Amino acid sequence: MTRVRENGETMTETSQVTARQVGVEAGRVLKVALLGGGTVGSQVARILLDDAEPLAARAGARLELSGIAVRNVDAPRDVELPRELYTTDAEGLVAGADLVIELMGGIEPARTHILAALRHGASVVTGNKALLAQDGATLFDEADAHDAELNFEAAVAGAIPIIRPIRESLSGDRITRVLGIVNGTTNFILDAMDTTGAQFADVLAEAQRLGYAEADPTADVEGLDAAAKAAILASLAFHTRVSLDDVRCEGITKVSAADIVAAQDAGMTIKLLAIAELVSADKAEQSGNEGVSVRVHPTLLPRTHPLAAVHGAYNAVFVEAENAGSLMFYGAGAGGAPTASAIMGDVVTTARRIVAGSPGRTGTATRVLPLVGPEGITTSYSVGLEVADQPGVLSRVASVFAQHGVSIETMRQRIHGTESATAADAGAASRAELRFVTHRATEAALAATVADIKNLDVVESVTSVLRVEGV
Amino acid sequence: MTRVRENGETMTETSQVTARQVGVEAGRVLKVALLGGGTVGSQVARILLDDAEPLAARAGARLELSGIAVRNVDAPRDVELPRELYTTDAEGLVAGADLVIELMGGIEPARTHILAALRHGASVVTGNKALLAQDGATLFDEADAHDAELNFEAAVAGAIPIIRPIRESLSGDRITRVLGIVNGTTNFILDAMDTTGAQFADVLAEAQRLGYAEADPTADVEGLDAAAKAAILASLAFHTRVSLDDVRCEGITKVSAADIVAAQDAGMTIKLLAIAELVSADKAEQSGNEGVSVRVHPTLLPRTHPLAAVHGAYNAVFVEAENAGSLMFYGAGAGGAPTASAIMGDVVTTARRIVAGSPGRTGTATRVLPLVGPEGITTSYSVGLEVADQPGVLSRVASVFAQHGVSIETMRQRIHGTESATAADAGAASRAELRFVTHRATEAALAATVADIKNLDVVESVTSVLRVEGV
Repeated sequence: MTRVRENGETMTETSQVTARQVGVEAGRVLKVALLGGGTVGSQVARILLDDAEPLAARAGARLELSGIAVRNVDAPRDVELPRELYTTDAEGLVAGADLVIELMGGIEPARTHILAALRHGASVVTGNKALLAQDGATLFDEADAHDAELNFEAAVAGAIPIIRPIRESLSGDRITRVLGIVNGTTNFILDAMDTTGAQFADVLAEAQRLGYAEADPTADVEGLDAAAKAAILASLAFHTRVSLDDVRCEGITKVSAADIVAAQDAGMTIKLLAIAELVSADKAEQSGNEGVSVRVHPTLLPRTHPLAAVHGAYNAVFVEAENAGSLMFYGAGAGGAPTASAIMGDVVTTARRIVAGSPGRTGTATRVLPLVGPEGITTSYSVGLEVADQPGVLSRVASVFAQHGVSIETMRQRIHGTESATAADAGAASRAELRFVTHRATEAALAATVADIKNLDVVESVTSVLRVEGV
Repeated sequence: MTRVRENGETMTETSQVTARQVGVEAGRVLKVALLGGGTVGSQVARILLDDAEPLAARAGARLELSGIAVRNVDAPRDVELPRELYTTDAEGLVAGADLVIELMGGIEPARTHILAALRHGASVVTGNKALLAQDGATLFDEADAHDAELNFEAAVAGAIPIIRPIRESLSGDRITRVLGIVNGTTNFILDAMDTTGAQFADVLAEAQRLGYAEADPTADVEGLDAAAKAAILASLAFHTRVSLDDVRCEGITKVSAADIVAAQDAGMTIKLLAIAELVSADKAEQSGNEGVSVRVHPTLLPRTHPLAAVHGAYNAVFVEAENAGSLMFYGAGAGGAPTASAIMGDVVTTARRIVAGSPGRTGTATRVLPLVGPEGITTSYSVGLEVADQPGVLSRVASVFAQHGVSIETMRQRIHGTESATAADAGAASRAELRFVTHRATEAALAATVADIKNLDVVESVTSVLRVEGV
């Protein structure tokens, strides 16, 4: 049975608000097809049914849920919805729809259904980050060719409005950098490591127990989920096309409790960041043009940076633009209801444009920017070493940095739990830990430095190499 | 002379990005009239001229700046622009425009020009919060009647995308509360008081010296600027109509250094918040319906609340929605370039819709919600008293709270700089300071409590009464 909420969210039409302002065209109905009946799909269906009145007032047309395509009509569901809505005939459902909500996930058959919808002029709302990151260009071209809209606010950072602000609010500005905490699982794990001092494996197990991490956590902890979102953000922010294959990606599995402690000592925290950066002409591969660098990796951030205050499974996206300056968007990055909120915002907005007679034209790629690889960008690095605690070690290590032109900004030493920045060349104990933070250097210069440092007989091991942002 | 930036922000059309994707309709030109040549207007004109190529690619049409209406064509200007653009004939400029950017500010003649533009079907982008808060309904009706768009992202919180996220991204959700730091001057002053311990008057003088406060700071420090923004946010968030007169407003002039210290002692900070709240049926004046409460006042916030971390002249808006949960939008709230960024985002987005053939229909009021006055809402309060430091005082004060049904959550006492929560009934010195934080109570109950407390012979004075949010 349909549960209609009785909380007073009803439309009151009085003489002060005319029918024109309310804007529901007489008898106008949009047929909405829902593909996927999982957690988010069920929430979306619930909202479409329960909030039909206010949604109609805001969209300017009744949004009629014509069906929910699922693999098994008889599977048990969390949310109680009218049984007759379920169908296995996704193709038929799409063929009769004005607006298709795709929540199946994965590449196929989602891709086929979206293309079919766009080809007959239906607009599409999706949260499918994998498909957009892999083959967004094909979908955008098809939408443009048929004057249909393709909206996907839910694909990045759940309920946080970030796609629309980048595509529309900042369309008159020049975005130079996007830094995002766009994966709740890894932020939960890193935040818990920061708070408790525990090792990655232990915190992951706890996150799995609490439902913040999946049984197979690979896509999250290896950074693949964040990489798909980075590709989408980079494409929109820089009006170009970036696909998942273009994103350099490193996960958090190698971040140790010692790294976290060292970060804390330096007034920093470690976050898994999706980074999309406009690289100016002189750094880009092709001279006379700009390039774009897109990457995901664990990153040291000063605790004073707004992103450092994003705790637990929350997401946030920090945007730097030429005129707007620094902006941050913060909120819940996942979950059925928050994701459904983002989907429904797209549904209402898309419906308004269908009613107005002209969906499409939200602006995607207007240029082709070259991808800039690691050779084209510079970053600060934090390098941790275990060394023999004997005279001359620091000077030998420092000379390797110097040989490769990598300048050292700070050095910290820890011997048997004490800390000193001067004792490295004087001590007599067995082992010490050194942590260097460098000035900006290329990845190639740093890699050569680290390789040579490893070969020093006084160096036991290189315990960590982490990039630093926001300094 | 027009300065054209040579920074490589040029459009590269290659075989990978087709003309259709770039989307500039052959020869399509939109005439853009700019009303106002001040700080923001000059920045907007500069962007329109310097970034013509990328703007055309994103908008789908060339945006031709047809003129800048000013009072005095010969006045000196910060930004060097072609002299022939300036005119005193605003009316003529508006008559020939496809898109009008209104940056004159104030009610008239801005209102007349905006209405004239909408009446001949031109869309309007404005940052005029005063006009929108006072007479937005008239403007929205005129826009709807002529299928024109009226966009105003710059009117609230400068460069921060907040209008569009509320109107579009959250259009499928039910917003329940908006808390905003929407005035940079007052946030700068309160933040400086928090950091330095100085009194309001001294910090205001310093803010004026640094250019963060105007010579006549009334509109900022009395909360009037924030109240206009509160009216706009409430109208959009709750799909109803709220004007400036509906906003209860209290400024920060009475916030003392002692209030700040007391807040710090309690783990809190004081912010001037614009608050717009959906009040559920049982609290609203009219039963069986919802109501809305809109107010601006200095507010105690726990230091752990995301808004507590908004420092200096920055702005932020915290939104609570039924499905999305808590969201925060953070950035620069004022300044020429950030405000110009918001204006230009609206310009490009509006131009796209004009090109697509159907501006309008962004959705404004769909219902009329009753305003809920102070009698209809409850808040926690912080109450500061100076009392005679003698036995029995605390119990006498506490009994007054109890008589009016106001429940006390915490009490702190300060005697000669020491602090104790138990010494009030035991001490023997001359004076003590008591700070109570209450559970939620109505304003009427609190006012009656405070009146009776003032009449107690053991009470020297009521030093402050502040509302508390976020607990």
